Amino acid sequence: MSVDSPCSIARSLGVFGGRWTFLILREAMSGVTRFADFRTALGIAPDVLTERLGTLVDHGVMTREPYQETGQRARYEYVLTPAGRELRVVLGALQQWGDAHLPRPEGPTVLRRVRGSERPVHVGYVDEAGREVDPDNVQVVRTAAYPS
Amino acid sequence: MSVDSPCSIARSLGVFGGRWTFLILREAMSGVTRFADFRTALGIAPDVLTERLGTLVDHGVMTREPYQETGQRARYEYVLTPAGRELRVVLGALQQWGDAHLPRPEGPTVLRRVRGSERPVHVGYVDEAGREVDPDNVQVVRTAAYPS
Repeated sequence: MSVDSPCSIARSLGVFGGRWTFLILREAMSGVTRFADFRTALGIAPDVLTERLGTLVDHGVMTREPYQETGQRARYEYVLTPAGRELRVVLGALQQWGDAHLPRPEGPTVLRRVRGSERPVHVGYVDEAGREVDPDNVQVVRTAAYPS
Repeated sequence: MSVDSPCSIARSLGVFGGRWTFLILREAMSGVTRFADFRTALGIAPDVLTERLGTLVDHGVMTREPYQETGQRARYEYVLTPAGRELRVVLGALQQWGDAHLPRPEGPTVLRRVRGSERPVHVGYVDEAGREVDPDNVQVVRTAAYPS
């Protein structure tokens, strides 16, 4: 489970380092940037949060930027990079699966819509012309880099 | 991080229970069904593998089916359910992110193609007409079920 694995799923999970990291990313996607706000939102232990944010910064998912409020010492904000924002689709796929297969009586907490409309959006496979491809019609092809 | 969380990302991660589970699912997607074959492919400790497979069965991601070879005792195969197969898109999204942002000099180990063609497939957002939606044009809308 390392960032050196030949498998890009394993490498990605080497960065995400478990479930807390996905929930940190969920908060970051909804605009949280400050250490104290991640702590409050998630109820996560500070040492775990420090370690996970550090891993995300080390791998280019977030940047650490100083800020200072009047009369306070300098602190840091954690801001998603463009690579970090691309993880939206991973979180969207997890959310859609949970909504479908682990539903709650209250229904989903969030919905995905085309901006400014009621049109629902889901996560799926897309071809290079921007048209959806049925999952059964997607073939996984091994390359020469596949471990023997 | 429980299957009772209001957040469907957290509920999904409650089932997947960490990184090993995603790699078990990766092997299952490529056709592995037997305990010994999961062990060999992943180098995972048997007690961890037993526990993770049990969680996947409990939550309807896999079924446990008996099989018997001549002269051997009955054993079990672990087979993805339709809900389990729907996780393909989650693994596809993780893989695509790793290929883009944690590349290796050898290149990706697998590619996704429209079956029987060279046409590449990626994971993205899709509207109800089956057309791709730019991620910046996807809005996350909170419902009444969102925790206050």
